[in-house]
Amino acid sequence: MTDSYTGADLRALLKEQALLEETMALASWDQLTGMPKDSGEFRAELQSYLTEKYLGVSTGDQAKALVAYFDEHASELSDDEQALFAKFKEDYERDAVVPADEYISFNKLSSSAQDAWSEAREQDDYSIYAPYLQQLIALKRKFITYWRKDEATPYDVLLNQFEPGLTVEKLDAVFNEVKAGVVALRNRLATEGTEPDDSFLHRDVAIADQRGYVWDAAVRLGYNPNKGRLDDTIHPFMQDLNRDDARITTRWATDDFQMAVLGILHEAGHGLFAQNVAPKWDYTPFNKAIAMSIHESQSLFNEVVIGRSEAFLRHDYPIMQAAFHGVLDDVDFETFYKGWMKTQASLIRTEADPLTYPLHIIIRYEIEKAIFNDDIDVETLPELWNAKYQEYLGIRPPSDLTGILQDIHWAGGDFGYFPSYALGHLYAAQFRHEMAKTLDIDGLLEAGDIQPLFDWRKEHVWQYGASKTPSQVLRDATGEDLNPQYWLDLQTRRYLQAYNVK
Amino acid sequence: MTDSYTGADLRALLKEQALLEETMALASWDQLTGMPKDSGEFRAELQSYLTEKYLGVSTGDQAKALVAYFDEHASELSDDEQALFAKFKEDYERDAVVPADEYISFNKLSSSAQDAWSEAREQDDYSIYAPYLQQLIALKRKFITYWRKDEATPYDVLLNQFEPGLTVEKLDAVFNEVKAGVVALRNRLATEGTEPDDSFLHRDVAIADQRGYVWDAAVRLGYNPNKGRLDDTIHPFMQDLNRDDARITTRWATDDFQMAVLGILHEAGHGLFAQNVAPKWDYTPFNKAIAMSIHESQSLFNEVVIGRSEAFLRHDYPIMQAAFHGVLDDVDFETFYKGWMKTQASLIRTEADPLTYPLHIIIRYEIEKAIFNDDIDVETLPELWNAKYQEYLGIRPPSDLTGILQDIHWAGGDFGYFPSYALGHLYAAQFRHEMAKTLDIDGLLEAGDIQPLFDWRKEHVWQYGASKTPSQVLRDATGEDLNPQYWLDLQTRRYLQAYNVK
Repeated sequence: MTDSYTGADLRALLKEQALLEETMALASWDQLTGMPKDSGEFRAELQSYLTEKYLGVSTGDQAKALVAYFDEHASELSDDEQALFAKFKEDYERDAVVPADEYISFNKLSSSAQDAWSEAREQDDYSIYAPYLQQLIALKRKFITYWRKDEATPYDVLLNQFEPGLTVEKLDAVFNEVKAGVVALRNRLATEGTEPDDSFLHRDVAIADQRGYVWDAAVRLGYNPNKGRLDDTIHPFMQDLNRDDARITTRWATDDFQMAVLGILHEAGHGLFAQNVAPKWDYTPFNKAIAMSIHESQSLFNEVVIGRSEAFLRHDYPIMQAAFHGVLDDVDFETFYKGWMKTQASLIRTEADPLTYPLHIIIRYEIEKAIFNDDIDVETLPELWNAKYQEYLGIRPPSDLTGILQDIHWAGGDFGYFPSYALGHLYAAQFRHEMAKTLDIDGLLEAGDIQPLFDWRKEHVWQYGASKTPSQVLRDATGEDLNPQYWLDLQTRRYLQAYNVK
Repeated sequence: MTDSYTGADLRALLKEQALLEETMALASWDQLTGMPKDSGEFRAELQSYLTEKYLGVSTGDQAKALVAYFDEHASELSDDEQALFAKFKEDYERDAVVPADEYISFNKLSSSAQDAWSEAREQDDYSIYAPYLQQLIALKRKFITYWRKDEATPYDVLLNQFEPGLTVEKLDAVFNEVKAGVVALRNRLATEGTEPDDSFLHRDVAIADQRGYVWDAAVRLGYNPNKGRLDDTIHPFMQDLNRDDARITTRWATDDFQMAVLGILHEAGHGLFAQNVAPKWDYTPFNKAIAMSIHESQSLFNEVVIGRSEAFLRHDYPIMQAAFHGVLDDVDFETFYKGWMKTQASLIRTEADPLTYPLHIIIRYEIEKAIFNDDIDVETLPELWNAKYQEYLGIRPPSDLTGILQDIHWAGGDFGYFPSYALGHLYAAQFRHEMAKTLDIDGLLEAGDIQPLFDWRKEHVWQYGASKTPSQVLRDATGEDLNPQYWLDLQTRRYLQAYNVK
């Protein structure tokens, strides 16, 4: 005789998961926004306790029983609950199929690897980090054998976890098109274009003035200030606890206001998504904080599609000038806009402009693929990294500090995550293309009328939360699969104009 | 056959309690320091989940089994564990003896009562709140019947929960002495004294300048900035998550720098205590955040014993003048000090000066006693309140808003808590008296040499956390029981001087 369960039992367990996630999210946000310096040890203990509780709920006896029961009785659930159950089961199986001791080893190793990565960065010495990276990869390879079903290659398994349905075959095609397009456009700008002057972007602007302008701009773009807050941090992020509490963070430099302006628009874009998920997904895994490609498409819609558009800036530039108390009064709009759009190859992904950014991602993607599909030796990664920067961007890192040691992702055990960042750019442009069929986007932006764009994004993207896969959202909203040409077209139009190419 | 347990089992349960308390403390701190305005509903849900988990641990099967086992086998525990067990058992029995449904009713009622209290304040209408207060009192009376052992009166039971060993009999004697002393001293100041001019305390001082001075002062008094932080809030408090994370909060007014200066010194005093509890009490109930009389004695030691002392201010006044950029440059120290010490009857407890403060508490104490020992009708409380203000302080609240509706404590179900505030004043003065036998307190303060005072307080008070009762700490540190005369002597000396009474 087995117990029987109802949808309410499933929802109760999902709610407990969600509440524990909310708690961990608060503790993590706090840790990154001014937690007292000396209290790291106590916080690690707290997070480890909460993680253990979370795993107890998500892979414990009740979770196991629910999976077993509803595998046989899915029809007893409502449609929404069936979708929630499918997601829950997928997560459960991914976690439960890995032996607990290996899971714990992986987490410990990842924690040590992050320390080794920090140490390697301090010493600018990859060899301190390499052995940890090697062990992490070895364990991940083992996990792939547990997870793999019908995926064509090992790396497909990892891709799929972040981007359901995505394959190496599809992504190779997309990224090759992007790579060829960007390289060609950059060549054209270099040979036919006039490089804009962007020196005024480095004039001193008081942080209070920067904050005054950009907070107002973020709110005008729809970020609800009563459901969020803005704090200082080192590596900016958005953290949502729930749809009424989606917090953004930034860093500031008095001599680089563009960083905070675009950074805050970006995080506020994530916040818009989090604030506007349909209430019916409260306390379920469809309302959670994972910033995958589709989430990134919304931060980038704010930052790039809007924040780099001439129409928006034409409306906002006088507001910015007034907020900056005269600092930009001698810079006319044409000069400002061209400087704002200057593109330049750089070594650091997080500082890259929107045209070169995908190349940074493609390099990481190709290396991850080589690691998991070609078993490449970790010793050779720095040279591979540097060679690819030379080939695609024309610059070579002088040392690993500005090369392979710049990202924490691999030390955290995250392989297959990077592509989401580039996909976000492509999705954002494809949404824009579709939106332009019914909305005069530039006219609205220049008039400061954001509401129709807000409504479109809420209707087609935000409300679904994580209840649809990114590719489903894209197909439902635009009627077609991912097509990188929209992104290339948008960038080509904008950069040819900014570089005065006729 | 019963299971057998070890000290490690006890410690594991205490640790889980402590971790859940730390989590609730973080969520509560966050709620009071800038949590997005709209997210109250989600936060209430989170806190209620955490509270339920906490109760599950502290009164669940494992707790029950541990109490039963170590009741018979206390000798198997170390000395420290025996002390922890005694405290744990006391808390367990206090919670477990109340039927769960009544406990839940009380919490729900208290939540509604707080809403009614807010509403009553908005309307300045006590009758909105009175029915809730009446029900809370009725339930509390019922709980007292569960809790009462050999206490002389019902109210003794409540007093004891906040101040172990304290009785109505003892407290009547202490408070009568204080009341008589303060009334006599205030009469003397009114007839023989010269009221100081304190108008300069209301000059405009930029908040950044206030912050600059007082944060530095708090740190000089020993508050460790790497184990704490300062945030804005409405009703200031200190919240410690652990001894490496004791956060203080304040409010600011440009035209009242004394409020923030004394307020921050006060909260930093709580922080000093929290930061300096012995590490051996980590993750136990002896290292927790309850601000009872002894905790208050340390905040008041900072705020009153130090922050109102001529010697400290003589050292700090030039620093403050410099930080305030000229605002006080025309005020000489004698004028400053006398103005700083001005005492005045006021209606609001939290705004009272240290001389009149105990009278506010004594009024509340006498009313609580009347409620629980004389079954006085809640309808008559406002008039009783107002009559006592007239009698002891010579002023009568024009309405209940500045009368009985000012404090949230009763709406929160806290009866018997108020006396701790006044006891804190008395303890602080008694510690000072003892300290003066071996330290030249004024000489040290005037020289800015805080270390010996810090060391004394750490050795005699802070390190013990909650492992000793307040009266034990007092006896061990000073060799005698509570004696309010030290407080009266200190205040008399200071106020006669400030009011030029020969």
